[in-house]
Amino acid sequence: MFRRRLRAGPPEDVGSFRAGGVGMAAAVDTLVRATDVPPGMGPGQMGAKAVTACVSDFAAKGLRPEFGVVSVSLPRGTTAREAGLLASGIGRACSRYGVRVVGGDTNEGEASVTVCLLGRAGRAVPRGGAASGDAVFVTGPFGLAAAGLDSMLRGGRRFARHVTSPVARLEFGVENAGRMSAAMDSSDGLAATLHGIAGGSGARIVVDRAPAGRGVAGYAGSRGLDPDALVFYGGEEYEIVFTARPRSRRAVMASAGRLGVPALEIGRVERGSGVYLERGGARERLAPGGWRHLG
Amino acid sequence: MFRRRLRAGPPEDVGSFRAGGVGMAAAVDTLVRATDVPPGMGPGQMGAKAVTACVSDFAAKGLRPEFGVVSVSLPRGTTAREAGLLASGIGRACSRYGVRVVGGDTNEGEASVTVCLLGRAGRAVPRGGAASGDAVFVTGPFGLAAAGLDSMLRGGRRFARHVTSPVARLEFGVENAGRMSAAMDSSDGLAATLHGIAGGSGARIVVDRAPAGRGVAGYAGSRGLDPDALVFYGGEEYEIVFTARPRSRRAVMASAGRLGVPALEIGRVERGSGVYLERGGARERLAPGGWRHLG
Repeated sequence: MFRRRLRAGPPEDVGSFRAGGVGMAAAVDTLVRATDVPPGMGPGQMGAKAVTACVSDFAAKGLRPEFGVVSVSLPRGTTAREAGLLASGIGRACSRYGVRVVGGDTNEGEASVTVCLLGRAGRAVPRGGAASGDAVFVTGPFGLAAAGLDSMLRGGRRFARHVTSPVARLEFGVENAGRMSAAMDSSDGLAATLHGIAGGSGARIVVDRAPAGRGVAGYAGSRGLDPDALVFYGGEEYEIVFTARPRSRRAVMASAGRLGVPALEIGRVERGSGVYLERGGARERLAPGGWRHLG
Repeated sequence: MFRRRLRAGPPEDVGSFRAGGVGMAAAVDTLVRATDVPPGMGPGQMGAKAVTACVSDFAAKGLRPEFGVVSVSLPRGTTAREAGLLASGIGRACSRYGVRVVGGDTNEGEASVTVCLLGRAGRAVPRGGAASGDAVFVTGPFGLAAAGLDSMLRGGRRFARHVTSPVARLEFGVENAGRMSAAMDSSDGLAATLHGIAGGSGARIVVDRAPAGRGVAGYAGSRGLDPDALVFYGGEEYEIVFTARPRSRRAVMASAGRLGVPALEIGRVERGSGVYLERGGARERLAPGGWRHLG
């Protein structure tokens, strides 16, 4: 609805436009402390994660963000130390990803950080470019952030760094832009992301290998949770989910190896629609589901 | 502190950078419902005001925003009607100012709207360019928004449109960019803005005419408020405060007349520092003060 009312074009996480003859790309992400930051995650980590989330949008389009504008809201009573840690976290993450902060503002309000990133557009990898026969890849395992969140909400620290200190796959995305037929950032959860690509491409995705992170199944068992829920519906993971022609498989995996990115092939694109999980010869529909907030 | 930690350059409301050989400008503004939106102001007005605030930053630099990225946070339980009105308000304001929305995201959280605007840079009018002998201008009267806020917080509607439906002086700013030696948007309050220009320019500003809006003094009297407090420390007014060489006076006022902008000359720039109010031959210091939130 927002897209329609704002006449904002097709649903991509990164918008593109031409200014002075130069193709530009822009994305925005807001991290809200009350709903996105569990107890045990500090202000510096919150600031860095807000940047990482927006960089991840660019990474999944194969684009490099260059400039950032940051809006920070903090409640009355925030200490200078907390504000300083938040600013440092934003600054460090921007440095790591090569983003130069060119503007910003500060406000009084519920603690939140909005990061708007800008870069040159090039050819953005679409969400709708997957074709029957393509292979489906992810840049890393899933379920670790959901397990970490569950642990942190219970006062634990297991898998916590996957919640507090995620990393965007920027170099991988930029290096493989020409090999990806369709791609999305996985922050809304793996199932929702696969549905985004399948729906956008008018194709079916069949997953034959659930990319569960090491220790996720054991943790789920110990807590009476469904491991598939953690893997497919956890969200807040900043992996690239993408499709590629089978002939690109070798180059994609070689690039991943060189960059230290634990990429996995998890399935294939077929004619049809929807997303299916194939396991022991049986096929079940994978509902879109999606990302659920804390509270 | 944020500027320093983010290595974000000099304090301007609009940041500038070069991308692909093109000079670009970016600004961001966040409107938080809890602190910025009084009872009696609707979601459509809130959305439009968030856009207006950011357009005003561009207007005061003599720059035209062209593209927008919008991040909206809304709490659980927001109705589709409310969300729709908010989106329509954002969209209408963007249309009015010629801004095309190229991206955005939505989040769960305290109701707030962050607008990031982009445009080509050209020569941005600095805050630090005022020189002794310049005349000081404002694009409209002050104190109406503060009076309106006071009225609305008491359940009234006097001056309410100055709170709910402010207008940015975009055409005036763009048309007079070459005539302004220094300029800032007045959203932090008139006194704070004058201090921003005086401090940035290493000069003194002497105000010999308080630009009180019609009815402000009477309203202040009826409420036992200090009219100067409303005029100089109200804030949330989107006028351009600027300086110009005396030889530009006629062209500035002619442009204002043509555009229907009620510009006023309120004082002059002298050697020295600080901001002074001259009245009946006496001179008093005008403290920076600044904008105060509702709560």
